[in-house]
Amino acid sequence: MQEKPAGEQGGAEKQMIRRFVFGNPLETEAVLEKPQAVQLCAGKADNESISMKDGKGTDAAFGTQSPYLSWDGESLSFCMDNDDIVYGLGENVRGINKRGWIYVSDCTDNPHHHEDMHSLYGAHNFLLIDGKETFGLFIDTPAKVTFDVGYTKYDELRITVEDNAFELYVIEAPEQRRAEKECTEKKRAKNECAEREDTEQEYTEQKCAGLETGATGQSISAPERIVREFRRLIGRSYIPPKWAFGYGQSRWSYMTSQEVREVARQYREQHLPLDMIYLDIDYMERYKDFTVDREAFPDFEELVEELKEQGVRLVPIIDAGVKIEEGYDVYEEGVANGFFCKDADGKEFVVGVWPGRCLLPDMLNSEAGHWFGRKYKLLLDMGIEGFWNDMNEPALFYSEKRLNDLFDRMGEYRGRNMGVDDFFGFQHIPLALSNNEEDYRSFYHNFRGQKVRHDKVHNLFGYYMTRSAGEAFEELEPDKRILLFSRASYIGMHRYGGIWTGDNKSWWSHLLMNLKMMPSLNMCGFLYVGADIGGFGMDCTRDLLLRWLAFGIFLPLLRNHSAMGTRRQELYALGDTEDFRNIVALRYRLLPYLYSEFMKAALTDGMYARPLGFVWPEDPIARRVEDQLLIGESIMIAPVYEQNAVGRTVYLPEEMKLVRFREAQIVEETVLPAGHHYVEIPLDEIVLFIRKGHILPLAQGGEKVADVDWDELELVHFAGRGARYELYDDDGESREVDLDAGMQWICL
Amino acid sequence: MQEKPAGEQGGAEKQMIRRFVFGNPLETEAVLEKPQAVQLCAGKADNESISMKDGKGTDAAFGTQSPYLSWDGESLSFCMDNDDIVYGLGENVRGINKRGWIYVSDCTDNPHHHEDMHSLYGAHNFLLIDGKETFGLFIDTPAKVTFDVGYTKYDELRITVEDNAFELYVIEAPEQRRAEKECTEKKRAKNECAEREDTEQEYTEQKCAGLETGATGQSISAPERIVREFRRLIGRSYIPPKWAFGYGQSRWSYMTSQEVREVARQYREQHLPLDMIYLDIDYMERYKDFTVDREAFPDFEELVEELKEQGVRLVPIIDAGVKIEEGYDVYEEGVANGFFCKDADGKEFVVGVWPGRCLLPDMLNSEAGHWFGRKYKLLLDMGIEGFWNDMNEPALFYSEKRLNDLFDRMGEYRGRNMGVDDFFGFQHIPLALSNNEEDYRSFYHNFRGQKVRHDKVHNLFGYYMTRSAGEAFEELEPDKRILLFSRASYIGMHRYGGIWTGDNKSWWSHLLMNLKMMPSLNMCGFLYVGADIGGFGMDCTRDLLLRWLAFGIFLPLLRNHSAMGTRRQELYALGDTEDFRNIVALRYRLLPYLYSEFMKAALTDGMYARPLGFVWPEDPIARRVEDQLLIGESIMIAPVYEQNAVGRTVYLPEEMKLVRFREAQIVEETVLPAGHHYVEIPLDEIVLFIRKGHILPLAQGGEKVADVDWDELELVHFAGRGARYELYDDDGESREVDLDAGMQWICL
Repeated sequence: MQEKPAGEQGGAEKQMIRRFVFGNPLETEAVLEKPQAVQLCAGKADNESISMKDGKGTDAAFGTQSPYLSWDGESLSFCMDNDDIVYGLGENVRGINKRGWIYVSDCTDNPHHHEDMHSLYGAHNFLLIDGKETFGLFIDTPAKVTFDVGYTKYDELRITVEDNAFELYVIEAPEQRRAEKECTEKKRAKNECAEREDTEQEYTEQKCAGLETGATGQSISAPERIVREFRRLIGRSYIPPKWAFGYGQSRWSYMTSQEVREVARQYREQHLPLDMIYLDIDYMERYKDFTVDREAFPDFEELVEELKEQGVRLVPIIDAGVKIEEGYDVYEEGVANGFFCKDADGKEFVVGVWPGRCLLPDMLNSEAGHWFGRKYKLLLDMGIEGFWNDMNEPALFYSEKRLNDLFDRMGEYRGRNMGVDDFFGFQHIPLALSNNEEDYRSFYHNFRGQKVRHDKVHNLFGYYMTRSAGEAFEELEPDKRILLFSRASYIGMHRYGGIWTGDNKSWWSHLLMNLKMMPSLNMCGFLYVGADIGGFGMDCTRDLLLRWLAFGIFLPLLRNHSAMGTRRQELYALGDTEDFRNIVALRYRLLPYLYSEFMKAALTDGMYARPLGFVWPEDPIARRVEDQLLIGESIMIAPVYEQNAVGRTVYLPEEMKLVRFREAQIVEETVLPAGHHYVEIPLDEIVLFIRKGHILPLAQGGEKVADVDWDELELVHFAGRGARYELYDDDGESREVDLDAGMQWICL
Repeated sequence: MQEKPAGEQGGAEKQMIRRFVFGNPLETEAVLEKPQAVQLCAGKADNESISMKDGKGTDAAFGTQSPYLSWDGESLSFCMDNDDIVYGLGENVRGINKRGWIYVSDCTDNPHHHEDMHSLYGAHNFLLIDGKETFGLFIDTPAKVTFDVGYTKYDELRITVEDNAFELYVIEAPEQRRAEKECTEKKRAKNECAEREDTEQEYTEQKCAGLETGATGQSISAPERIVREFRRLIGRSYIPPKWAFGYGQSRWSYMTSQEVREVARQYREQHLPLDMIYLDIDYMERYKDFTVDREAFPDFEELVEELKEQGVRLVPIIDAGVKIEEGYDVYEEGVANGFFCKDADGKEFVVGVWPGRCLLPDMLNSEAGHWFGRKYKLLLDMGIEGFWNDMNEPALFYSEKRLNDLFDRMGEYRGRNMGVDDFFGFQHIPLALSNNEEDYRSFYHNFRGQKVRHDKVHNLFGYYMTRSAGEAFEELEPDKRILLFSRASYIGMHRYGGIWTGDNKSWWSHLLMNLKMMPSLNMCGFLYVGADIGGFGMDCTRDLLLRWLAFGIFLPLLRNHSAMGTRRQELYALGDTEDFRNIVALRYRLLPYLYSEFMKAALTDGMYARPLGFVWPEDPIARRVEDQLLIGESIMIAPVYEQNAVGRTVYLPEEMKLVRFREAQIVEETVLPAGHHYVEIPLDEIVLFIRKGHILPLAQGGEKVADVDWDELELVHFAGRGARYELYDDDGESREVDLDAGMQWICL
């Protein structure tokens, strides 16, 4: 372990971020790409906020510098206090509080997002410990990282990095913590006198000295302050066009122009709001990137324009693998230029994906990346304005070599009397073909002129694919935002696109997981995020889709997507369509607020969806709530996520106003005291809670984002006269955004 | 559809059960065994309570007789009211309220008990609709039955039976319902005046005219009354020996005598209570039923005795498949007598299970069953007093024929360029080997002299295996209860043994599923039931095991079991053993109460674990509670089932007393008013709620059941002087049980 030299920034009190380098980048193969990886993540950071010291650190010296962690030469460890909460890790299973499991950063295409999974599609090595001590940790490495958060030892956090070469950032907010505790005291004192005064007015005006404030003057807790410091380090989050905040309908796949038109027709005729229809792999000719199947979509360009006139954008998928096919330009150009990943002997490494045999573009090779990114132009030129990048972990059905071996291996079992000792092994041979680690160790990248084995940089593949596209769009469309999100990701990719959380299932537990993942993703910079509403795999039910939508309308990326062979779950497919229409209609009423909160989060490195513990870190019950979220500054949501439930208990850390919607109209406004409440929430209603002193602006709605009138706002509120809400708006298209220029105060 | 003739029992008001026969038993192959199946299920019923009428029914006539259901010639349907709850279906995924999914009765060995599963190991065709109308339905058929409970159409229940041949029982409690509603009114009136009186005393004495009362004078709601009527029809539930209510430790597998001794030593030395150690398949010689591996267990008989002296019984597993091995007596006798299932040509049907190639005993052939049952004697003679029957769906890894075909089929893919269109099909070929429906259609039973294809009677296989054992025990040990439970089951098997709920996982959601399944199983007669505590598959965590135990100690079958290759989860394996000891210690303190409540449920056809809606059917919130249970008459439990939660909200339908245990001692008794409460429940504490007017007797505890002193009881209560609890006890061993003789009043 070495500390990297850096200029000091004032006294120890002011050190928000410390950086430590473990291992020697020059000595191990793993870190050939290391400096670059750091630059990728921290590249847009305000370097002046990073404090570093001279000299080689010993374990003891490291302990002095980072009082929280121990380093035993193999892993970092931290002894967790009983009351510590461990936030972070972005896209992973289990709770908002990550304690009690092992998580491994190792981008993986696995559609079984079960409680026992250790890895999903992203590698998000940020942790935030909040309790006795409050600090953040970022492990910058493209290698596999294991976070044992109290699994092996109940009170121990242990972080192990493959090959022991990584950079560690420790992020603190010591002053913040103190100020916040003082503030809590002040609030208490204030609340006492407030009983005899105009509470609402008083509350709205309340400011605590010594606290940094957010974009709109709200106080910020220590956990959130640490997130902001980290986010400042890793750079501004991706901002999509405003229309991408509408409702999107997807399916694997709408197979023809005709089917796409039919979906649009159903939505428009039934007055179901819609802004996007997604095209999954079948729009391509034999699953070839940057082609269009002209038999199924003979009039692709006309279709794009025709739908755009209806306010509906088509959003096609792009896959990582390039089909091997003579005469296919992408394949031929790539081979000619050496742009594909190669095996140890320098031959193109053949893998099987959707089209069968494919090659993988070397996304980490800047030339290859630039070439691949420019290919999106073909679809931009057809009028396309958004994309989703898939299979970029990269997902491998098989490698050609491993597949050939399989037949011999399986043949050996013929005639054997197979029992428990060998049958299961036999049965799983074909399953072990996919995403095999041995395959990931069998091909190489040309990274800055060096040959780097894939497994050493595995977690960067999806990131670089999406970065390539994002950078190409900056060149190709310098004045216009392009919608872009990805399945695989690494921290840093949040600057180029959003993510969707991959192939979930039509399970009630996945609705809840969707909720729990949101704040963790926000912490890591991913703001434009969402899950497949209704669930991708398995069959959806009417009530599940209604409940999932009732939550999903609060997320930036609102997309209903489902897999081939599963029950249809378009909003008109499950009966009593008006219930679905009414829920999505509310989304369009909420748009000015949601867009405003998204943009404020993006432009101030803030959180869009916060756990209750970020706002009430001193409230022991609030800190443990895992099924409610704050969406922006004004509202809290508490979705129903259990089948056949007709209501649920909700915890209010403070007095709030319950607002109930039916048919997208307010039918109840009730002030509830702090504490637990049982709230009835029928299937066709939505309930949200407005925080005291806050305002929720509501538009009249619309059937597409362009319909929504930002000037005709109804102000729902739990505040007295003079209360204010700072609304952000812009043209929704320009890349250039200006927080101050877009802000306006709305006053009661 | 035909109505079966029967003598009428008074007027329509008194008809509790109606029976309808659909299809013609003599005309279809499916129902060759039909009369027997009915007899099996209803055999012990009080036939006088069944009302049947003469004549062939038309659809209209059926509708008149059964006003709830429609029959369209293919399926039964019922239009559900928005507020109807559908209880029942025994062992299945999802909620206590089964609405919103399709369930298929089709005994299946599938270790993925996910939300989207349609079938688990049991076939439990009993439903109870409670709402606008309240009635029960039992579909008696060994064929596959599909229950679409509002999946396809949100408000429609649709029941479809393969081959359309079945008997339908409709169970009503019309008078009960009316009386209960009257009673609710009376209670309200009473409660009003009670405010000025001695509430507790008054409550205890409260009786409502016109209500049937339970064993101890408690009033019974309509849903529970219907369950009792149904249970009276299907016969008394299995009663295990008293020691089987202790804690059991299991693992696939304790491999040697030495390892078994080591487990026992750890428990005894660390004062961890223990009554049973389970032996999974590795105690056998090459997985052969009714053998002992003499290399690993050279001193099996001594081991059995030695452990019994420590108060620990060994409970070995018995599998359905019999290994094909020359010289193996069970195999050779079976072949010689034609006791195995045969293919269409009359040759033994070869399947692969644990030992490799096996034959399936024809459990439905009464001679074969008798022969198989008598085989257990070998282990009884070694001192064994309990068994678990496994793999009796029957689970098939493969059939020999299908396995041979597989190699050819897979070979055809060699050299192909496999993409999305064929790769997944290829990859799943070996998985489709197991439990293949085509195999189930390829072998036959000799049932009462008739050749019956297996798929027609599939759901009876596990039932008959366990019945064979149970009937053999009655012959072999006429005065002694033998522990017996099974994985596969059909209603009726509850008379011969309990069930465990199969291969669950170390998931928090499976702890909750365990809870939700309990009342459904009880309704179907299965009282001695439990899940693998801590989870069978996947890795358990310390907190999960603690929380699961904190729930599991209230279940009759309390067994910690886990799979090969998973993390060890014996109570001493996860650190801070005293926390585990304290939780299980409370189980032994609760034993007099739990045993008493179990026996009362068994002897009065009652429920051991009830949903809140069974006790407060008029309370709309109570009816929707899916994460709390009543255990017996006195207590309600509300376990924590979420990781990192430090408490939970609990709903009290009426005033109750919270009792908190730490180190198995009471540390808090607090009376709480009706309504929702947030209750802190640390990992090392257990909270339960005593109902008003009720008493919970607690023993001093012990490290084995035999230690527990039934005469030294501490009475925890929420009642006034004069309140009573009716305690049942017996010697815990004799088959002969007498409710009246075992009952004694305990008075405050």
